Amino acid sequence: MATMSREEFNRLLTQTGPGTPMGALFRRYWLPALLASELPVPDCPPVRVGLLSEKLLAFRDSDGQLGLVDEFCAHRGVSLWFGRNEMRGIRCPYHGWKYDVTGRCVEVPSEPPERGFHEKVRLKSYPLVERGGILWAYMGPPESRPDLPEFEFATVGDDQRYVSKRFQFCNYLQAMEGGIDPHHVAFLHGGEVSKEAMIAVEHASSYFHPELEVKLEARESAGGLVIAYGRDVDGGQASYWRVMHWIAPCFTLIPPFGEHPVHGHFWVPVDDEHCFAWTFDYHPRRSLTEDELDAARQGRGLHAKLIPGTFLPVANRGNDYLMDRAKQAAGIHYSGIESIAMQDASLQESMGPIQDRARETLASSDRIIVMARRALRDAALSLQEGSTPPGADPRSHRVRSATVKLPPDANVLDAVEAFIKVREDMGYASV
Amino acid sequence: MATMSREEFNRLLTQTGPGTPMGALFRRYWLPALLASELPVPDCPPVRVGLLSEKLLAFRDSDGQLGLVDEFCAHRGVSLWFGRNEMRGIRCPYHGWKYDVTGRCVEVPSEPPERGFHEKVRLKSYPLVERGGILWAYMGPPESRPDLPEFEFATVGDDQRYVSKRFQFCNYLQAMEGGIDPHHVAFLHGGEVSKEAMIAVEHASSYFHPELEVKLEARESAGGLVIAYGRDVDGGQASYWRVMHWIAPCFTLIPPFGEHPVHGHFWVPVDDEHCFAWTFDYHPRRSLTEDELDAARQGRGLHAKLIPGTFLPVANRGNDYLMDRAKQAAGIHYSGIESIAMQDASLQESMGPIQDRARETLASSDRIIVMARRALRDAALSLQEGSTPPGADPRSHRVRSATVKLPPDANVLDAVEAFIKVREDMGYASV
Amino acid sequence: MATMSREEFNRLLTQTGPGTPMGALFRRYWLPALLASELPVPDCPPVRVGLLSEKLLAFRDSDGQLGLVDEFCAHRGVSLWFGRNEMRGIRCPYHGWKYDVTGRCVEVPSEPPERGFHEKVRLKSYPLVERGGILWAYMGPPESRPDLPEFEFATVGDDQRYVSKRFQFCNYLQAMEGGIDPHHVAFLHGGEVSKEAMIAVEHASSYFHPELEVKLEARESAGGLVIAYGRDVDGGQASYWRVMHWIAPCFTLIPPFGEHPVHGHFWVPVDDEHCFAWTFDYHPRRSLTEDELDAARQGRGLHAKLIPGTFLPVANRGNDYLMDRAKQAAGIHYSGIESIAMQDASLQESMGPIQDRARETLASSDRIIVMARRALRDAALSLQEGSTPPGADPRSHRVRSATVKLPPDANVLDAVEAFIKVREDMGYASV
Repeated sequence: MATMSREEFNRLLTQTGPGTPMGALFRRYWLPALLASELPVPDCPPVRVGLLSEKLLAFRDSDGQLGLVDEFCAHRGVSLWFGRNEMRGIRCPYHGWKYDVTGRCVEVPSEPPERGFHEKVRLKSYPLVERGGILWAYMGPPESRPDLPEFEFATVGDDQRYVSKRFQFCNYLQAMEGGIDPHHVAFLHGGEVSKEAMIAVEHASSYFHPELEVKLEARESAGGLVIAYGRDVDGGQASYWRVMHWIAPCFTLIPPFGEHPVHGHFWVPVDDEHCFAWTFDYHPRRSLTEDELDAARQGRGLHAKLIPGTFLPVANRGNDYLMDRAKQAAGIHYSGIESIAMQDASLQESMGPIQDRARETLASSDRIIVMARRALRDAALSLQEGSTPPGADPRSHRVRSATVKLPPDANVLDAVEAFIKVREDMGYASV
Repeated sequence: MATMSREEFNRLLTQTGPGTPMGALFRRYWLPALLASELPVPDCPPVRVGLLSEKLLAFRDSDGQLGLVDEFCAHRGVSLWFGRNEMRGIRCPYHGWKYDVTGRCVEVPSEPPERGFHEKVRLKSYPLVERGGILWAYMGPPESRPDLPEFEFATVGDDQRYVSKRFQFCNYLQAMEGGIDPHHVAFLHGGEVSKEAMIAVEHASSYFHPELEVKLEARESAGGLVIAYGRDVDGGQASYWRVMHWIAPCFTLIPPFGEHPVHGHFWVPVDDEHCFAWTFDYHPRRSLTEDELDAARQGRGLHAKLIPGTFLPVANRGNDYLMDRAKQAAGIHYSGIESIAMQDASLQESMGPIQDRARETLASSDRIIVMARRALRDAALSLQEGSTPPGADPRSHRVRSATVKLPPDANVLDAVEAFIKVREDMGYASV
Repeated sequence: MATMSREEFNRLLTQTGPGTPMGALFRRYWLPALLASELPVPDCPPVRVGLLSEKLLAFRDSDGQLGLVDEFCAHRGVSLWFGRNEMRGIRCPYHGWKYDVTGRCVEVPSEPPERGFHEKVRLKSYPLVERGGILWAYMGPPESRPDLPEFEFATVGDDQRYVSKRFQFCNYLQAMEGGIDPHHVAFLHGGEVSKEAMIAVEHASSYFHPELEVKLEARESAGGLVIAYGRDVDGGQASYWRVMHWIAPCFTLIPPFGEHPVHGHFWVPVDDEHCFAWTFDYHPRRSLTEDELDAARQGRGLHAKLIPGTFLPVANRGNDYLMDRAKQAAGIHYSGIESIAMQDASLQESMGPIQDRARETLASSDRIIVMARRALRDAALSLQEGSTPPGADPRSHRVRSATVKLPPDANVLDAVEAFIKVREDMGYASV
């Protein structure tokens, strides 16, 4: 491929609207579009959906079928959000044009049905399916539609999982890069992570000390990247490794702490300047406890406290994320901002709506970010030559994260190989 | 005329700023600019006026004369809204430059009057006249100024009329198209209209059933279009016709219900992305009752409930028009939004600031809208060749709307011809 | 120099971002950037600074040293406002990169220090020094840095001075032009000024009557312009002259009233559409009284009442500056707006973000404004040929304003020559 300037590279990575190379790549995956709870019952209120710079409307019809169609009526361009969802279709309130979940226009009241006018009318529509508490959309060519996602969190019992989403005022990429960045954890989230670690595993909190050198191992996987970051602990007797996954184009799976639930994210573009940060907790072997569910619902852990009735965080750029300099100075939170989610979001949004990567200065510790950017670039460009994108095949989803203690000279990625696949007959590695 | 793309056609229709063809057309009419009550007494506070993408200031001087001038002082560009309206002129508070209602600068205190500096200074100004509770502006070439408007509502006694205005966040055209669109009434306003009809005329409510086929008749009139839409009723024994008017460029007159007052609108561009929806009620033969006035003042009927001290509706895009899905589902309002005005405004604003007509799909029922668009286009283009615009001559204003029941095979427009002119010796047709 | 259109001239004068001629000129001066009280103690919270269209961060390190650096971390572009100010530097909370007050990166935790990675990283930084209650920034070439400012207000004892700043929603130039405009005072501020004058000097209030002709004398000074405006008073027996200074690029010094403190301003560009209006009171010979300080703190005099915790005025464009038409009509305030600061700001903001000077109409009374514009233009263009800008040398700052009564035929600028320099052995002229 021809040489690309830093500006061109940044545009390639960050633009996902119709007609863009990265937009074409994202359109080859099932993407989280809504929480299943947003369309709970047949004929419930429809929901506006912004996805990959398209304005869509999701609804569940009288039979419980899911539809994801153009937000605007084909007739005069009125938003179908104002429509009536009833009798197996969404009806525009202006002149009564009615559409089914596939976007077919099934009625134009002003035209005699026998003339078949309505049959020529069709809204853009995409498949929308429920799985694991999420409604997934596929916006690409029908013939390229992959099988449904098989991320473990989405296939366990409903009692073993909690999912939330949070609106973020920036491009998906700078948000996602935070999700695969092993180095910021000991700084930005130092206090919080240590606390969780400490509850989980005695002494683990000390493993996150900013002064411990971080060792990085990463390799390509079927879906994207498997990433290990380790620290020499116990006086150099052992290495404490945390092994995570990035699955193209925007899924991350965080390593566990002991018997705690596992967490992960999707970073889904709404348009080029906004995204949804999706967060899930799940446990591969047991129900989540009431305490765990309660914490998640209240916006603790990796979730955020939201303004009721919205997906907007209570702490946001309009109030400087409720930063508390006294708590910062006292080290109660490293950045003075409460909650891991908002610590990340505050910094990511402060980069501007789209980070200008032509002005950044990368260090060796940014190697994972560089690998992911290149993987996205290569996948987008190879797609134009007909390649199948990594991470589209659901078999590549069946991965687990892991935490292990190994002898200092062990090869971590070889050592955990068996543990980082989802296999019914095996436990998972978490210390 | 040369072939025009849909995009060009849309721009032609929707742009009314200085230098545009449609702007030139609108500038050949007296347009509603303010409610008379906005400038109630001599030397009252001046009012900012946005009209056809120009920023103007209206004021009433010490003698009660009306002025409509450039909002900004010719000197340093300060808004004269901050000015002092006193002693027969508006005085800029910055350096005391003073202007009369014709925009003439009558004083520049820093310059010796004998040098005549002020005589060379002049603000752009337009005639502004009061008629029928409205202050009308004429922004075109002086030599083309038509006689004053003679719409019947504006010429009856003040006790026979009520006028309001409401700010709308979209182009005037998509708002006005709603005003001449016979087909949306049975859907969007179905419930409300039936209720009013039912009070007015026994059984009429059933005439608005969405499943009744709507017959359309329309023809060009001196001022624009006369439009009839009918439904076969009484088991096919009769046709119930409603006959309305569109007078170029932006006036509509709604058919009456029995002895109720008649309603109508103006749709006046503020700029290309905002307009004022003007609404009037009047009765050609009697005073409005206290109940009728009270309902109008409270924003019922075709008026809207406004935020006090503003022309902004209480139900607006910031609160999703207070849509109530439960009332929608129960059919209390077809769209779940209260009031006919906001049912229209919500949908019209949802089309975006300027509807993209290149993406719409018109049906045979949109014939009236197509006729009006063509009439506007033809008027704008013919004006460039020197034609007199339709609707400028006030004789073309003297029309009445009508409702009639006719035998199914009668020609409605011929039948009502005598009734749809304002003639002192005649009643009006309303069933 | 080649002929310049009015539009080009306006752009030259109003654009001060990097790479513009006027931006280059402003970058040759020490400019007020923050109140000293914004960075009160070592390791206090850092402060975002917008200056000449650059986004910067000011902080005071553990040793009390002041830094003014790029707002964004060189690494990934995160705002350092979220950083930890501790241990002699500001540390980015994302990955712990740390910078000292000179912008040098002193630590990159993920990189082994021995490799010296951090030594190649540097933030843009500018000197920031405290003087007279203000933190002054110099953003130009180091070799051209002038000596520190010597405006008298900044060199007197802290007890003799009060300084405030106020954010204004317009270009600096239209704000500053108000500050050197002798003619608006009798109009816009007529009532307020008369009141202050009356307290200071018996009968002086009558000197500000709008109908008195204003005589203007101005000449170039070492730093910019000295400006005298006079009125014939006492039945033509004497002239009452007020003598003020404009020092390039944006400093004005107002004439005194009797024994009252002297006032002055800086008009500092934040970006091309926003500025800070700085206001100071000082007395060359005595402490300010508790009453004087109290008035200033409460936003009286030339200061503005601010929304607590911000530099935004309580009366602002969002509330039409709390204009009171009844008080306007009664003449309690000429424009109906309270406080001299907001009388100016309201009109200046009403001109739009950048006044379109191609559309203004200047009068002979605008001679001073014309002189200042030309002086700015000439300074900006001469700078490109290597000239030293007027007003950069601090000796040009040592000026005083004056008020004098002279015989009608006296040459005012000759007469006050001795009084308008700062000389320790002399009083100042103020009647």
